[in-house]
Amino acid sequence: MNFCSDNVTGVAPEIMAAIIAANEGAVMPYGNDELTKRLSAKFAELFETEVTVFPVATGSAANAIALSVITPPFGAIYCHTESHINLDECGAPEFYTNGAKLIALTGSHGKISADDLTKALKKAGAGVVHHVQPAAVSITQSTEAGTVYQPDEIQQIAEVTHSHNLSLHMDGARFANAVVSLNCTPAEITWRAGVDVLSFGATKNGAMAAEAVVFFKRELAEMFGYRRKRGGHLFSKMRFLSAQLEAYITDNLWLKNATRANEMAARLAAGLTSLPGVKLCHPVSANEIFIQLPETVIQGLLAAGFLFYLWEGEDATTLRLVTAFNTKEEDVNAFIKTAASYSAVDSNMAIGELTGV
Amino acid sequence: MNFCSDNVTGVAPEIMAAIIAANEGAVMPYGNDELTKRLSAKFAELFETEVTVFPVATGSAANAIALSVITPPFGAIYCHTESHINLDECGAPEFYTNGAKLIALTGSHGKISADDLTKALKKAGAGVVHHVQPAAVSITQSTEAGTVYQPDEIQQIAEVTHSHNLSLHMDGARFANAVVSLNCTPAEITWRAGVDVLSFGATKNGAMAAEAVVFFKRELAEMFGYRRKRGGHLFSKMRFLSAQLEAYITDNLWLKNATRANEMAARLAAGLTSLPGVKLCHPVSANEIFIQLPETVIQGLLAAGFLFYLWEGEDATTLRLVTAFNTKEEDVNAFIKTAASYSAVDSNMAIGELTGV
Amino acid sequence: MNFCSDNVTGVAPEIMAAIIAANEGAVMPYGNDELTKRLSAKFAELFETEVTVFPVATGSAANAIALSVITPPFGAIYCHTESHINLDECGAPEFYTNGAKLIALTGSHGKISADDLTKALKKAGAGVVHHVQPAAVSITQSTEAGTVYQPDEIQQIAEVTHSHNLSLHMDGARFANAVVSLNCTPAEITWRAGVDVLSFGATKNGAMAAEAVVFFKRELAEMFGYRRKRGGHLFSKMRFLSAQLEAYITDNLWLKNATRANEMAARLAAGLTSLPGVKLCHPVSANEIFIQLPETVIQGLLAAGFLFYLWEGEDATTLRLVTAFNTKEEDVNAFIKTAASYSAVDSNMAIGELTGV
Amino acid sequence: MNFCSDNVTGVAPEIMAAIIAANEGAVMPYGNDELTKRLSAKFAELFETEVTVFPVATGSAANAIALSVITPPFGAIYCHTESHINLDECGAPEFYTNGAKLIALTGSHGKISADDLTKALKKAGAGVVHHVQPAAVSITQSTEAGTVYQPDEIQQIAEVTHSHNLSLHMDGARFANAVVSLNCTPAEITWRAGVDVLSFGATKNGAMAAEAVVFFKRELAEMFGYRRKRGGHLFSKMRFLSAQLEAYITDNLWLKNATRANEMAARLAAGLTSLPGVKLCHPVSANEIFIQLPETVIQGLLAAGFLFYLWEGEDATTLRLVTAFNTKEEDVNAFIKTAASYSAVDSNMAIGELTGV
Repeated sequence: MNFCSDNVTGVAPEIMAAIIAANEGAVMPYGNDELTKRLSAKFAELFETEVTVFPVATGSAANAIALSVITPPFGAIYCHTESHINLDECGAPEFYTNGAKLIALTGSHGKISADDLTKALKKAGAGVVHHVQPAAVSITQSTEAGTVYQPDEIQQIAEVTHSHNLSLHMDGARFANAVVSLNCTPAEITWRAGVDVLSFGATKNGAMAAEAVVFFKRELAEMFGYRRKRGGHLFSKMRFLSAQLEAYITDNLWLKNATRANEMAARLAAGLTSLPGVKLCHPVSANEIFIQLPETVIQGLLAAGFLFYLWEGEDATTLRLVTAFNTKEEDVNAFIKTAASYSAVDSNMAIGELTGV
Repeated sequence: MNFCSDNVTGVAPEIMAAIIAANEGAVMPYGNDELTKRLSAKFAELFETEVTVFPVATGSAANAIALSVITPPFGAIYCHTESHINLDECGAPEFYTNGAKLIALTGSHGKISADDLTKALKKAGAGVVHHVQPAAVSITQSTEAGTVYQPDEIQQIAEVTHSHNLSLHMDGARFANAVVSLNCTPAEITWRAGVDVLSFGATKNGAMAAEAVVFFKRELAEMFGYRRKRGGHLFSKMRFLSAQLEAYITDNLWLKNATRANEMAARLAAGLTSLPGVKLCHPVSANEIFIQLPETVIQGLLAAGFLFYLWEGEDATTLRLVTAFNTKEEDVNAFIKTAASYSAVDSNMAIGELTGV
Repeated sequence: MNFCSDNVTGVAPEIMAAIIAANEGAVMPYGNDELTKRLSAKFAELFETEVTVFPVATGSAANAIALSVITPPFGAIYCHTESHINLDECGAPEFYTNGAKLIALTGSHGKISADDLTKALKKAGAGVVHHVQPAAVSITQSTEAGTVYQPDEIQQIAEVTHSHNLSLHMDGARFANAVVSLNCTPAEITWRAGVDVLSFGATKNGAMAAEAVVFFKRELAEMFGYRRKRGGHLFSKMRFLSAQLEAYITDNLWLKNATRANEMAARLAAGLTSLPGVKLCHPVSANEIFIQLPETVIQGLLAAGFLFYLWEGEDATTLRLVTAFNTKEEDVNAFIKTAASYSAVDSNMAIGELTGV
Repeated sequence: MNFCSDNVTGVAPEIMAAIIAANEGAVMPYGNDELTKRLSAKFAELFETEVTVFPVATGSAANAIALSVITPPFGAIYCHTESHINLDECGAPEFYTNGAKLIALTGSHGKISADDLTKALKKAGAGVVHHVQPAAVSITQSTEAGTVYQPDEIQQIAEVTHSHNLSLHMDGARFANAVVSLNCTPAEITWRAGVDVLSFGATKNGAMAAEAVVFFKRELAEMFGYRRKRGGHLFSKMRFLSAQLEAYITDNLWLKNATRANEMAARLAAGLTSLPGVKLCHPVSANEIFIQLPETVIQGLLAAGFLFYLWEGEDATTLRLVTAFNTKEEDVNAFIKTAASYSAVDSNMAIGELTGV
């Protein structure tokens, strides 16, 4: 009953089966295997356009190496202040870009707006040697707040981005959850909306350790191979990354998994918001819930053995709950039931009594 | 019948079983799982001393991040001119150290000598601001030439290294093959001989993608975690790396695998050197053979479907043959037999006739 | 009548004389000359404590190299959002630190507060591998807003800084103007208040191109020499930098020059604020004035040939005026007089009439 | 009587006069002054072609920033093993390129050959992701051995360079000495021979601290400004760099100065080689002499107060003597005379007797 993150999960059975199947025989290393060679074609089908695809093993690697090919060392990357690249990668983008600067924009519910981006770019000092030079915009889909960008919101951001000669990157660590939430095609919220390069996540949604960097603007891909190698991210036994990615996008597994995760999040959110004293921080559009619960409820859940992260917020009663491809309905029900039982408890009761401490 | 490299192999069954076993249940991410937590203790047992261990997925990452914690940006790393860090990592050490300089030393059969190291350090200009500052020495065990350093050779290098206040790194991508070859304990050729940090390879010897960075001088480890994360090498589902490493060192699997690889190399070398016109470039001590064969023999082997790399050498008739944990005796025998059959062929025969081209 | 910046000025006569005097004879290069060798002793006298001093030629070099010795690549530097290191050095700190992150704090009148710093550090995630690690705090004295930190304000910031094991850097591009403004000793607002390393500016206050990086915490200086050389900032004919710095601190020249600059700023501010429709953006404590003037006045001043920068602010009528060591009282008077004459003009008058365009 | 280096000299009177003259009035900073603006035109005239010119203050900055715009982080720079960029800049090229690799070629008398370059490029692994990618070639004119490349030698190197899509950089720290030595035009040994970017040195030949980075392939210059600023090398009072450079190339001052230096070197070499037991290490074509003298002569010269560097060589009796724009004929004569007097001394005499130690 671990709701800490979607990365507490293991590997989906279909993907594990693909890993085992890929173990047959000797194949050439470093991506010169059949599985890897056919990956770009598979993704081209998925995205309905020609793409160049590079498998890597972590989301930080996908983001940072992708950004490094679209941002010079003296460049600026515009992103949301709460974005993973800005807060949670220990400076990986700065490392891979050799010292570019992330310009963090605020924006409600984890999203930046085209307007705020325009304003920020206006005062950026493009062409003036004293200032870092605007080079890239990075948005997260679904966002770190568990919300999603609508296709037209992406399009507006892309227009601003491209009109200033910048490139648009999408951190799609939870891309599947966004596609399911929006009930759209992958193309609609990427290249058709103006995204140039996508970190297409699989790890959080059932893979072991696999992400695909998908270049829609394919000429950007030229330098990627050298930078990936130089970062120590070119796997000798690449077939095992490629096998994960192929299985992930075969027979809509990625969408099936995300559908489950999203449904469980919706069920959990619905159950909790029906209780008194509960407040959602953000709309629940994907598989993450940010929610304020009464202190007694939180303590009760912890006492009952539920695992989750307390989130930094206005006060200490905000928590993040993440569902995943294998979240069980019975666990969601148990969570709601437990919360409800403590919700009914007299709120004047001392916490010590509840937890037995 | 692929003798190109030991990384053309898949995953050893024991390791695949461990990966599958690790897939049970939800566990905390980023190394906060039981498998990872007990890894240092397991390696301490193996090495008969306290160590700090970090799992990573590739050898380049292991080497480059390890070097980055012992070398400042203005530092110099002394290594063999043919070493993997110098030739085959697209500058990963330079990237992770933020621009340190590799000083390449020559040396027969892939080994540097304590004497040559002393000479190089003498003219390095330590303390003089115009010159990069000696910081680290890196040796490869077993070497890129398929040879091994004797314990006393390592000890001599370590003495020079430490007497100049440098740190000693060992690239052990094929460490198991060296231990088997020398019939020594892991301790004897590492910390007891003066090694400060080891890239302990597993991928080439049966793992999927797993290497352990083992710090014997544990205070050096402090910065590693941040640099690993920053490099995008902190895996969220870390348990799958740790499971590989644990299985690898359990019940001597790593030694069993390396023994098979070394034996097959010895058999192959013995068979080939009994043929006329054949010359070994280096002694065969581990699982790599560098050998000159007559042109007709090479063409015959290629025509028969054997795969291997031609190696840059005095002429175009040097090839590298690598055996692995799963090399079959029958394949080795077939290779020798085929070579022998072409060896008998009249050497004036046109190659076209041989290959049917 | 150029009020754009204090760097539009040339070289003070005493400093030019020192440069000419330093041109005598052959001396050893790269700082092995007598002038450079005695520099640390001279600065020790000035600051009433032992210091290690390195001359460099630009303020960006002073700041960035200083920060690079107190901040690891995965480190965070806390500074004001308007600070020169954050906005005006094209990422020099990120470059020299190999990708550290600047965390920009807001704060009125160009100053950060100990409280805001405490709050920021609280949520920094020190010790957590996912986040860049707090390493340094950098404050500017006098600030980019023309204000000054009081000694006790610095002391409070230093206490927070050191209690978190960070280092405190002071960007003293206009340090002299602050010392004069506060009527304090150099020691009081540096090491006695807890500053670890100071960029001691001279260029803006009468030097040609010379800044001294002054280490009060002298063990921090160890790496500086290599990083300066590596950055291309070790001058072969170093004597000419040292001569500037020596002359600058001899016979209180630096204070004499700053006194003039500050007085002229005070006079200018007093004259302008007596006019209708004028508003100071920040208190004028040093040699910079940020002020809102009526549009007609601005146009009138431009038409009269006065040079200054329009500053980004709430509207387009904010301008920055900077005085210097050689600003003439008559120019200040002329500025005020011109402003006054246009201030009296009917504000409905078209600007075209004024400027003759 | 200091023959250690040409950077022990001060500033030539014409250049000091230009500095003083540039001190008139207020001018816009950061290169927006008239002196700087007309610099490209002045250099265009000198080089008989359109060029883009950037002033910097040190040779290391000129070299490293120039190399950084023609070499990606995963690139390789081919240079002579004794080159300044390889040995004497504490890794500045690695720093500015963010970790590119210098591939050092041997070659007699400080010169690389087109043939050796071809061989090195052949085995570089261009296009193969495991290897750093050939990006630039850098040659020094005049060389670190005091020799010069003939125009056709440069042309051959340039042909190899460009046929592999690399860029050709020339480190011209002593460019003037080469032009005088070859009695050629500046164009003949730069762009006409295929040089793409030149570090045009002035500091060693009479300037205070000024070098011009001259782009013949002007599209390469685009990124230079940002990288210079980011390196802390954009001077606010730029006029003083530009004034030096303008004076340096006005009325052939640079050639006049170099002529004197070269003549003094020739005279010194001629005088010394007439003595017994003396051996030149390299032909003397510019202003540097590498020479083996008997131990007694060396000790005698030291005892007489002459200053010079002992050079690392086969034995401890090799020294480097450098003449400069202001070397006096009488000092050269005294040097020869002193050497001659000790040359005559019985070589069995104890050194202690000579030096009085």
